[in-house]
Amino acid sequence: MKTIAVDLMGGDNAPESIANGVIEAVNKYDDIKVLAYGLKGSFPHEHKRVKFIEVTEAINSEDDPVRSIRRKKDSSLVRAAQAVKDKEALAIVSAGNTGALLTAGLFVVGRIKGIERPAIASMIPTTGDKGLMLLDMGANSENKPSHLLQFAQMATIYIEAVEGRKNPTVGLVNNGSEEIKGTPLTKETYQLLKESNLNFQGFFETRDVLSGKYDIAVTDGFTGNIILKTIEGTSMSLLGEVKKIFLKRAVNKVAALVLKKDVEALKDMMDYRQFGGAPLLGLDGIVLKAHGSSDSLAIKNAIRVARKLAESNAIDKIKESIKDNV
Amino acid sequence: MKTIAVDLMGGDNAPESIANGVIEAVNKYDDIKVLAYGLKGSFPHEHKRVKFIEVTEAINSEDDPVRSIRRKKDSSLVRAAQAVKDKEALAIVSAGNTGALLTAGLFVVGRIKGIERPAIASMIPTTGDKGLMLLDMGANSENKPSHLLQFAQMATIYIEAVEGRKNPTVGLVNNGSEEIKGTPLTKETYQLLKESNLNFQGFFETRDVLSGKYDIAVTDGFTGNIILKTIEGTSMSLLGEVKKIFLKRAVNKVAALVLKKDVEALKDMMDYRQFGGAPLLGLDGIVLKAHGSSDSLAIKNAIRVARKLAESNAIDKIKESIKDNV
Repeated sequence: MKTIAVDLMGGDNAPESIANGVIEAVNKYDDIKVLAYGLKGSFPHEHKRVKFIEVTEAINSEDDPVRSIRRKKDSSLVRAAQAVKDKEALAIVSAGNTGALLTAGLFVVGRIKGIERPAIASMIPTTGDKGLMLLDMGANSENKPSHLLQFAQMATIYIEAVEGRKNPTVGLVNNGSEEIKGTPLTKETYQLLKESNLNFQGFFETRDVLSGKYDIAVTDGFTGNIILKTIEGTSMSLLGEVKKIFLKRAVNKVAALVLKKDVEALKDMMDYRQFGGAPLLGLDGIVLKAHGSSDSLAIKNAIRVARKLAESNAIDKIKESIKDNV
Repeated sequence: MKTIAVDLMGGDNAPESIANGVIEAVNKYDDIKVLAYGLKGSFPHEHKRVKFIEVTEAINSEDDPVRSIRRKKDSSLVRAAQAVKDKEALAIVSAGNTGALLTAGLFVVGRIKGIERPAIASMIPTTGDKGLMLLDMGANSENKPSHLLQFAQMATIYIEAVEGRKNPTVGLVNNGSEEIKGTPLTKETYQLLKESNLNFQGFFETRDVLSGKYDIAVTDGFTGNIILKTIEGTSMSLLGEVKKIFLKRAVNKVAALVLKKDVEALKDMMDYRQFGGAPLLGLDGIVLKAHGSSDSLAIKNAIRVARKLAESNAIDKIKESIKDNV
């Protein structure tokens, strides 16, 4: 039985959707238990594998991350993180304030010894279903070459352990594929990756971001965040235009009916809710950030990934690997 | 009569497509003349408003920019840039090596006095047809806050003069919309833009990149390049998936026939060829970079933009504005 701690109070649709997602997850997976942390009345369900723990505080999206983690000791987020620290739970899932979750990860759960910086890693959908792990998505705004090397090492272990892909390919995001292109950061990181034992394939141009060409793309947190939002914006706008086309004329509406199912599948492919949250790698426990606008499906999927991560022992493998390299 | 210098030897489809694009442009616009620079045999047409000038060298995409501009004095690119310098032409259009065109712009055409760095500015398609001017797209790999301020100033003048939009809105690309988010570069630039007389609207999240929310988005050349390629990659992959849906079943093919025209229009919206090339702002003349894989339509449209730029006096207006600010 794997125990997962869930923050009921984080995200735009909290606590209702989070609570519903918890119920959907425990109904689907009979080998998990959930510790659900929330304010009074935030969990109006009964389930023998869910334990509701009432807290007196919640951290919201405007709260200053560091201050809120320090002061709101009885918040759902801090209490859920504490459960991981105390080994009462294997994982924490939150759709709330990213900075606060990261801070709780660092100050409560703790960093893996030898890891310089944690990273938020996100699975980006690709044509051909494989998915691309892109990191850092914004745990940091600036990074050093040694950080990016560790990101690539952690992502490699993750993809092997969780996705079962052997020796995954790694690309380094750059503004060109030639070795002379780039910033001091990308040029220096290129050398570190080339000398590493990772399956490094060279510079990665974001034209390939959905093509499934590589398994992993590493970049600094500023650039990663920009890439993710550019993909979101572009696909939202384009799928919006397709919808407009479907409604443009009576005859289009008929054609749209025929294609509806396939286009829905394409929308689902681009739907963040399918991806089940972004792991924060480099922490001494499983910490999963679910999208801020998560509904119950997104939460269920985040719990699914937490369960899979717990099964995979990926965190222990990262610890082993870093110990060997320090 | 406006004279435009064209490099026949640059780009993946040179010289045939470039030559064809020149012919299409002069046939469409009867107030332009073209000086077409190319190797022997590269312009197999006759037109009274096109003067073919035979050169002995060409710069290709693998050439080192600075060295090739210094050494290949009789190349089509250097000769066409020289025509702008000597006031024989008002503008140069090239689909070739971006670095070499930039170098020719700096060393042959020359920089506007007071401009610290030139920028490549690209019009990004948006829903609602307006288009977003994004810069820098990669003239630089690193920038200072003062560069970004000048980029915003130049783009404002360009959008007013060429697009006729008064007081265009400016956003600063960042990894979040709150003032505390960002890198030292974006935070410091934010203050400069806030104190400027530009229509600055705050941080720009790339989720809005196709939404038409702002007229101008400024960023460093590394990030701009990454954004452009992410948009290209995402739209290429998604439109590719739509095409697959259309071919999936017999009944889908029928539906696709009905929607074909509208989907083609959407593809055209995302088609770089419609945008007519990216102006290099900050140079003392009109320098336009056409896409490397330009066909004749793309070249015709780049010449169209060069013509419009020549009409607008945007370069003189930038010079005036910078003089006032120095």
